[in-house]
Amino acid sequence: MQNNEFEQRRRTVAGALPERKLDALLVSLSPNLRYLSGFTGSNGALLVLPDDAILFTDPRYQIQASLESSCRVRISKGPLLLDVAAALKRLRVKRIGYEPARMTCDFYESLKGRLPLKASLESVNGWIEELRMVKSSEELARIGRSVQTNSRAFEQTVSRVKHGMREQDLAAELEYRMRRAGAEKPSFETIVAAGERSALPHAQPGSARLEQGLVVVDMGAFQDGYASDMTRMLHIGVPAAKTKRMYRAVLEAQLAAIDAVRAGVRTTAVDSAAREVLKGYGLDRAFTHSTGHGLGLEIHEPPRLGRKDKLRLKAGMAVTIEPGVYIEGYGGIRIEDTVVVTERGCEILTPTSKELRVV
Amino acid sequence: MQNNEFEQRRRTVAGALPERKLDALLVSLSPNLRYLSGFTGSNGALLVLPDDAILFTDPRYQIQASLESSCRVRISKGPLLLDVAAALKRLRVKRIGYEPARMTCDFYESLKGRLPLKASLESVNGWIEELRMVKSSEELARIGRSVQTNSRAFEQTVSRVKHGMREQDLAAELEYRMRRAGAEKPSFETIVAAGERSALPHAQPGSARLEQGLVVVDMGAFQDGYASDMTRMLHIGVPAAKTKRMYRAVLEAQLAAIDAVRAGVRTTAVDSAAREVLKGYGLDRAFTHSTGHGLGLEIHEPPRLGRKDKLRLKAGMAVTIEPGVYIEGYGGIRIEDTVVVTERGCEILTPTSKELRVV
Repeated sequence: MQNNEFEQRRRTVAGALPERKLDALLVSLSPNLRYLSGFTGSNGALLVLPDDAILFTDPRYQIQASLESSCRVRISKGPLLLDVAAALKRLRVKRIGYEPARMTCDFYESLKGRLPLKASLESVNGWIEELRMVKSSEELARIGRSVQTNSRAFEQTVSRVKHGMREQDLAAELEYRMRRAGAEKPSFETIVAAGERSALPHAQPGSARLEQGLVVVDMGAFQDGYASDMTRMLHIGVPAAKTKRMYRAVLEAQLAAIDAVRAGVRTTAVDSAAREVLKGYGLDRAFTHSTGHGLGLEIHEPPRLGRKDKLRLKAGMAVTIEPGVYIEGYGGIRIEDTVVVTERGCEILTPTSKELRVV
Repeated sequence: MQNNEFEQRRRTVAGALPERKLDALLVSLSPNLRYLSGFTGSNGALLVLPDDAILFTDPRYQIQASLESSCRVRISKGPLLLDVAAALKRLRVKRIGYEPARMTCDFYESLKGRLPLKASLESVNGWIEELRMVKSSEELARIGRSVQTNSRAFEQTVSRVKHGMREQDLAAELEYRMRRAGAEKPSFETIVAAGERSALPHAQPGSARLEQGLVVVDMGAFQDGYASDMTRMLHIGVPAAKTKRMYRAVLEAQLAAIDAVRAGVRTTAVDSAAREVLKGYGLDRAFTHSTGHGLGLEIHEPPRLGRKDKLRLKAGMAVTIEPGVYIEGYGGIRIEDTVVVTERGCEILTPTSKELRVV
């Protein structure tokens, strides 16, 4: 990312401070901090002021912060909080926006106790997350590379899957390939769940071995800070007719949801498209989660594509499409791609084929 | 961990509620939740009551929660918060302890707004973290296995290190070996930093290649939920006399700090022991962080072994001992073991030898 992209974002935020009746916005450690500053360290706070921005971090990140960010950098020897409070006091900032969903009660109370009486902390919810929903071309390029890495790791690994392999060894292999292909790390704990365990939507890979039956593989990478997310199904041995029918149902639902994606369409409409197909198969009650979610600097970001939030999609949003059905004691099937919303529909980033792979 | 270990912990907490003038303790998602319930999912809240405990989670974890925890499980279809508030109301709980360092302002405000007027949220800081400092024998066994896995991965990988290898590929290899040896994941982002970059205490491995000079490898595993942490130094090519002297200084400091560890000794005394040795070498100002930290369900836990907190060590605490010196434009050296405090000294869990490995 060019430094001027971060500067542009800060200017957007600084420019909107007056209409929000704020003199400053305080962003404590979160992807929002990275989004506005470029800084990737594990301890930081950013103060966005009308004509300036100060990045607070500790001595471990002194060199890194100057390399990564064009903000003014302040190095705190103690808790960052003390220097943030001192700066707010010195600059006589009155109305300070903070992010209640990203700040602990502790930080809030300590900061509040150190501010002058005339200063106030004003709750700001979801502002930066909203800006983050529509990605720039550079961000989409990074998501694209992350998706490519992820799919390459999947292809390289799946060709070596064998009967009797342990779930955790398959997960280890996938993550290793991902890393070798350029990822910093998995974007979440890789899910490999075999047999009946595939019915647990968030199963952790264990020492269970891949025997006759379904295997769900849900994996993603972080590359250059940006997430990818994909789910594919394997089947050890020949699948039963019931399994094939379930697979077809989920695949149809996934394709219907993808078909429904387009700028201007409501997120709920995409979710309904998947749900309607599953209803036709009598499987709608086995679909226990949302159809998808945004992704970017976080693996789960707004918008959510579910039954509730009725947001309208915009071109440049990157979202997952991932219906699934789960039958306790039998197994689960989920198929997931990462797509980018366009004016006329969407671009499917995930290049991996979607047939049920029989091993 | 046996379920009765979790039950015992909950009884300890429940038994101490009256002296803290609390009717309940609310633990939102954090290692504290796992410590008290056994539940490992990514969304949960635990309500500890005098004679009962309720674990709240969402439908994705319905099966897993019952398998992992002997608590009563409540499955929330919407935000957990709503069900937590409803339960508190129904049970007519008045004084509810919460953890301000672990709860977001958002969660706090929403919960507060939903409680009856007579109910109050009371700040509880560091209570569970304090209980967690002294480990049970089962916990120490897990930490020991995590340390073994980590060291095995290091040994298997280091024997294959070559000139010109990229930092990120060495990190990928270390993490893969760790995973294959039984780890769930790295306990933090593996640090591999070559040459001058070794002077960045928290460098992220990049595309830089291992050429003549120092290489710092700081790595840890999570295995069965418990962390390990180790730093070792490699040197590509023959080290200069200055580097050898720096290495000797850090090694002496590390051994002196280990010698100082014993139940009853203050954490500051352990830190001073390392700092004094480095002073003798004129390197104390290049030692820019603390000597160590506790570890367990988190990679950084209390106690901190630094210049400030004067806590007395207790038998059964698991801590790192990791002095380091960093010289900008030259390089950095850190040596780190995981040790367990005993009545008479400490047990060094890390089995990896501490010579500077010349590749």
